[in-house]
Order: sequence, then C-alpha cells, then structure tokens
Amino acid sequence: MTGFTQIALEMDGPVATITLDREAKLNAFTATMMGELIEAFDRTDADDAVRAVIVTGRGRAFCAGADLSAGAATFDYDNRADAPRGGESPVRADGSVDYGHDAVRDGGGRVTLRIFESLKPVIAAVNGPAVGIGATMQLAMDVRMASETARFGFVFARRGIVPEAASSWFLPRLVGISQALEWCFSGRVFGADEALKGGLVRSVHAAADLLPAARALAQEIAENTAPVSVALTRQMLWRMLGAASPWDAHRLDSRAIWARGRSGDAKEGVVSFLEKRVPSYPDRVSENMPDFFPWWEEEQYK
Amino acid sequence: MTGFTQIALEMDGPVATITLDREAKLNAFTATMMGELIEAFDRTDADDAVRAVIVTGRGRAFCAGADLSAGAATFDYDNRADAPRGGESPVRADGSVDYGHDAVRDGGGRVTLRIFESLKPVIAAVNGPAVGIGATMQLAMDVRMASETARFGFVFARRGIVPEAASSWFLPRLVGISQALEWCFSGRVFGADEALKGGLVRSVHAAADLLPAARALAQEIAENTAPVSVALTRQMLWRMLGAASPWDAHRLDSRAIWARGRSGDAKEGVVSFLEKRVPSYPDRVSENMPDFFPWWEEEQYK
Amino acid sequence: MTGFTQIALEMDGPVATITLDREAKLNAFTATMMGELIEAFDRTDADDAVRAVIVTGRGRAFCAGADLSAGAATFDYDNRADAPRGGESPVRADGSVDYGHDAVRDGGGRVTLRIFESLKPVIAAVNGPAVGIGATMQLAMDVRMASETARFGFVFARRGIVPEAASSWFLPRLVGISQALEWCFSGRVFGADEALKGGLVRSVHAAADLLPAARALAQEIAENTAPVSVALTRQMLWRMLGAASPWDAHRLDSRAIWARGRSGDAKEGVVSFLEKRVPSYPDRVSENMPDFFPWWEEEQYK
Repeated sequence: MTGFTQIALEMDGPVATITLDREAKLNAFTATMMGELIEAFDRTDADDAVRAVIVTGRGRAFCAGADLSAGAATFDYDNRADAPRGGESPVRADGSVDYGHDAVRDGGGRVTLRIFESLKPVIAAVNGPAVGIGATMQLAMDVRMASETARFGFVFARRGIVPEAASSWFLPRLVGISQALEWCFSGRVFGADEALKGGLVRSVHAAADLLPAARALAQEIAENTAPVSVALTRQMLWRMLGAASPWDAHRLDSRAIWARGRSGDAKEGVVSFLEKRVPSYPDRVSENMPDFFPWWEEEQYK
Repeated sequence: MTGFTQIALEMDGPVATITLDREAKLNAFTATMMGELIEAFDRTDADDAVRAVIVTGRGRAFCAGADLSAGAATFDYDNRADAPRGGESPVRADGSVDYGHDAVRDGGGRVTLRIFESLKPVIAAVNGPAVGIGATMQLAMDVRMASETARFGFVFARRGIVPEAASSWFLPRLVGISQALEWCFSGRVFGADEALKGGLVRSVHAAADLLPAARALAQEIAENTAPVSVALTRQMLWRMLGAASPWDAHRLDSRAIWARGRSGDAKEGVVSFLEKRVPSYPDRVSENMPDFFPWWEEEQYK
Repeated sequence: MTGFTQIALEMDGPVATITLDREAKLNAFTATMMGELIEAFDRTDADDAVRAVIVTGRGRAFCAGADLSAGAATFDYDNRADAPRGGESPVRADGSVDYGHDAVRDGGGRVTLRIFESLKPVIAAVNGPAVGIGATMQLAMDVRMASETARFGFVFARRGIVPEAASSWFLPRLVGISQALEWCFSGRVFGADEALKGGLVRSVHAAADLLPAARALAQEIAENTAPVSVALTRQMLWRMLGAASPWDAHRLDSRAIWARGRSGDAKEGVVSFLEKRVPSYPDRVSENMPDFFPWWEEEQYK
C-alpha cells in the first residue's frame, strides 16, 4: 500500500504486517510515524481481507524510542514546531498551560488508543531494541512475541519525564503493579529473558523464527474463527478490564450472544463443527457488526 | 439431596460436591442444568453444615459445552422453545430486539453470577474436557484444579458467537488480558499443561488424585477457619477486584474489622490460638453476618 | 532520627531504612507502631535526600501481626483503651455502630493508605515471619523481597476476623484473585518459596544477602533517575490500577509529559544520555512537582 514514508504496510493473505521503517534511525518515533501508524490501523480495520495485524521493525531494532535529534528540546513540545503533538501552543500569555488543549495530547497515547480500538487482533513481533515509546506502543497490542535479540526499556525516569502512551494503565495490567513499578522506577534496559519471566512477552524465539511464529498465530485465527466474533471479542475483553462488576459483562454479553446467536455465522459455526469441515462464515466486520456496536459511550477527550 | 435430574449434589461432612451429571452427553449444558446449578448454590449457601463446594463432572468429561443437538438453531434463542434463557421473545414486531428483556439474559451468566454471590468457597475439580460454557462456568469459582486429562476451550469465535457467562470480565482477571485474548481469538482446545502455565488452573493432578486434592483444600478451610469470616472474605476480595481505590476497601474492612472484632468468633480465634487448640467458632452464616451485609447496592439487572 | 520507640528510621546516603523494632515481641503491631510508621513516611516524603525506602524487621521476624497480649479482647476495639484505632466509642446508646465514626477506621489501613501515598519507592525486605498485619502492610509497598527464612500468613479467618489494611483491594491485584482467595480462605502460614511461586515476592535471598539486594535496587533508582519523575510515576501507576479506561491515563500522562518535557530534568535527561555521562537532575520533589499534582480528587474519608 502506498502513501507511507516511515512505516510499511504489507498484506500476505489474511495477515497485514506493519513494519516500522526508519532503519538508519533504529526506527525512532516521530510525529510522522505517529500519524502513519494511526492511518495504518484505520486501513486494516476497514479491509475485511485483514484478519490479524503484525507489528515489527525494519533491520536490527524494533523502535529505539523518541527521536532525540532535537537534543535538549526533544520533549519541550512548546518550542518544537515538529513535535509529535502538533497544533498551536497551549501555553497562555501568563505562562500557565491549558491542559485541555489538543496540542497537549501525548502522541504515543494517540497511537496506543488507536490500537486499543482495533477490530483485528494485533501481534507485536519484537525483533530488537524497543525503548521508551518503542516499548509502550506495544502494550495496547494483544500479544507480544520477542526475538532473542529483543531488549526493552521503560526509560522515562532516566530522561526526566514519565511513562506515556497510557502505559500507566496498560503496563500494570499486563505484568502486575510491582513488576511495572520496578521497570519504570529503575528505567533499566533488559533482555528478552527478563521480559518473558516478567510476563511482558508470551514467547521468545530465535531471530529467524520470530515472524513465522507471529504469522502462525495470525493464520490460526484466520482459518478457524468468525471475523465479527473476533472483533467483538477483542473489544469485550479489553473494555471489561476496566469494568467494576461481572454484571457489566453480563449485560453486554447477553446482548452479544442474542444477536450473534441468530446470525448466519452461528449457524455455520455449529454446523461446520458437527460436519467436521472447515467453516465459511458469511458475516463481515465492515457490514455485520451488531446494532449495539460500539456500545461504549463516546469519549469526551479524543 | 433430591429433585435434580442433570446434576447431583452430595454432602460429605463439611464438603458439598456438585457433579454435572449427563454422562452420556459429556455433561453438556442445558436450560435445565442452568436452573439446577443455581438451585444447588442456593442450597449450599443456606446450609451451615456446608463449608466448601466442589464442582466436577460425571464420567470422562467436565462439561462439553452447550448441547448442540439443536444443530444450526443451537444459539438462535428466538427460535428455540427450550433455550436456556426462557421467557417470551424479546424480538419486536419490527424485528428489533428489546435488549432489556429478561429473555435476552445469557444463561451461562446467570450461573456464574450466582456462583459469584456464593457464601462458601467454590473449587472446580476439572476431570476432563471443559469447553465453551464448560470452561467459562469455572471462572467465577475460586480455585481451579485439573486432572491430567482435562482440556479447555474458549471456542466461541469458532462457533460464530462470543465469550459469554461474563467471561470477558472474569478471564482477563484470572490469566491476564493477553493470554485471555489469545485463547479467545484462536478458540483452540488446549490441555492441562497449557492451562497451568497460563494461570487458568492452580495445579494438575493424576486423575485419581484430583478429587482427594480438592477435598483436602476444602477440609483445610473447614477445620481451621470461622465460617462468617470466610463468607465475608469471599465477597470482599471478589468485589474489591472492581473497586477504583484502596479507600473503598478501607471503608469496608474498617466496618468488618470493627464488627467481627467484637464477635465471639474473634475471641475464640485468638484464645484458641494462644491455647494451641482446635477452634470452635460460635457464629453461623445463616444468622450472624454483620448488619452491613450485603453492603453492595442492589443490582438493577438481575 | 529521633522520637520513635517501636520503629527505627535510618539514612544511608539516598536510602532510608525503616526497621520494625520490637524484637522481643517479634515486632508485633501496636497503635504506637501504627502512628510511628505514618510519621516515618511523612518524613521520607519531605526529605529530598531520600530516594527510596526499605522496610524490614529487627531480629528474626518481620512482624508477627497484631500484638495478642490483650487475649480475647485483642480485636474488641470498643473495650480496649489502647486499641490501634483510638478515639471515642462509635457504639451508640442503642448498641448500633456509627460506621462513619473515625474510631472505626482500621489501623492497618491507615498505614497502607499512607504508604500508598508515598512519593518515594518502597521496598519490603522481609527477613522472617510476616503474619496478619505483618503480611498485609507490605501490600502497598512497591516491591517485596524475602529472605529464605521469611514466612507469610493471611491468617484472619483463623482468628475470626477478616483481611484488613485494604488487603482485599491490594492482594488480588498482586497475586491474582484465586491465589489471594486460597491464602485468605485457608489462613495457612507459608514459606518464601510459595510466596515466590504465587507472585507475592519478586525474589528470595539468603538471609545475609537480603538487605544488600534491597539496597542495590534502591541505589539503581537513586543513581539513574529524576526524583520528580519517580514520584509521579509511582502515583500514576498505582492510581491508574483503579481507572476504568486507558483514556484516563492518556488524559493524565498528556499533562505530565507536557509539564515534564519543558523541565530542566528532561533537558538534562536527554543531554546526559547523548553525552554518555551521569545525569544531574535539578528538580526536587519538595518544590517542583507539576501544578496539577495531586490530580486526584480529595478523598472524603481520611
């Protein structure tokens, strides 16, 4: 597909692969990359042929973090025209900050919240160093697989800033609050083994086996499951992670079971199973999501 | 105990065992089984002699999931008189659905929410295949033990439906969001080892050792602890899992510590410990729950 | 530092060590110890020289739990002048209890909620038995390390009471709901290996290596990271653990990244990294927290 300059988006059957593609800069994150990633997920959601999305990096790194070529001004977004936030300054004449201003919005968070909305499963194939936003952008992805050469660092406290990209919400839910705090307090860079032991990645692979393993999982999903079921499942599980009570899930899944149970997909799912044949589901994500989708209320701050 | 046709409820000292009991159908779930399970937990809660509940399956399976004998109509609840939801159709004349209609309520969720309310600890002894509702009904149980012959499958996306029984709330809290998503996206059926590694079960046992292990844990609870303390503890921990702040727990446990600290149980608990003798707690769940129990607000959708 | 009778507070460079200090009583918890712990954390927060806090016990125990020398009256706070809650009786003339009365507030929760507010990382170095409040007071600490001689017990149901110190909120978030329930239902006392396997502690050490390991982690934080970044990170991660949505984190970290990105710390963090030298951060927790801190609403029940 065309139009991207810092990422690549490629299709291979039902699997889309997004490659962070600034190899000479270790795929360091920029405002341009932010926008292209958001656009890429818009495309994978809109394309019914896409059943799963893999995210990886070109060359030896996954993503080295924010591009530090602006030096001391790197995170001083009020004094950078090319900041990954864009827009006019939210700093008022008296020096105070309008925190409701759109320009204040963290660029990493724009990406992770877009991934959070994805209707297709997202698999991180972490092929090398993943530091700062390179680590936190993965947290809204569903599954993380690492190469033996992967390295991770939540280095924010070593740069005088704080964990971003909504990682304060995601990371403790993935690895537990104590592990999350230790990685963020120390800011240390650690290897694939520590990531596996700490629960950040689900498996570690030889470098040559990483993408094949990610593709195998994507294919397993694509070959066996109904696309609308997977899209609903993804949003149900992620969003119920913030729900107060199982009653919230019951109210929701009662509607979903009713609506999906009447669908052609449910008939095909049961009959193909009983007939021991490969299923062929009729419903499409672009056309057949149930009438209560999206069920969550409009967010006021996007 | 009498009156059940698809489950059995047996008492052995302080331990109640609920056995899913449709062996010829691999204990497949039906509307009848749903009602009997709810009734069984009503009985175990009401009987002060019961200190813990074990749930297992008759024969070689735990529960094979929804009974698929209705074929393509299995999940089409609007066209099945015997649907495990019952009641009149919520489908309006114009074809739209009244999602607030009681008939829309998912039958699996009726069971898990009843288990969620249990005043006694609930131990799943998973003796064989547990698929669909056979897997999700376990998630509101406190502890899951598996036989080496156990198998699990969150197969909903392979049937064209979605995870039910409030599993979108329970499963990510038990095994983490990434493991939950992978199991639900793939719909794969997996063995006891993967369940153990993924945190779904706490231990795996030789088939002959499964029920003895479950009974040993039940006995450990029964012999050492105060019944009212256990009932309060169960509700405190499960419900605080959805609370926004430790202040919510502090407000609650301050009340509970005050009320229980004045009780005969607390006096007996300390004195029996100091005297190094077996405790004999006076309070009963049927009569001596504190005056603020149940503290949670009435749910509007039951 | 002076003024404490049941704890000790010592400084060693950037590391403060709080030692529970009633060796003859196995450091059993009292109302005095409660007050001194709260005061100690007030001091470590106010002292910019403190970069991390270690909590350990004098002698062979960490903390044996509530002091049981009052026997049957131990938890009968209405009839104990020296109860670790203090204040007038909340019991009304008609025998009912005013649960909003300050005297009802659990003393263990006063401690854990104070630790929850800490601006410095808190490391538990569990040198021996830690039972009851000795176990639950650790749960608001960020990292738990154990000696091979450590033992843990959530023994409340064996004393006729319930888990306190807001542990119904903390414990399931640290070890998962099923492990938390099993430990609290059984009330069993277990060793360091079970604590490690269950995720309660992050590492087990030979007795002589415990404090050096805790100090090494404290030093790693002190030498590499910006104090204001660490203070913000601690509150962000703990408080987002109760947030409904990653949008809550995005709204917050957008403000934090903007404010910190303009700071001298961020400039020093990037420049020192590019120059491959040790950073020297200018900002102080006592003076330079961002203008939106504390961002959470005032709690009504403190």
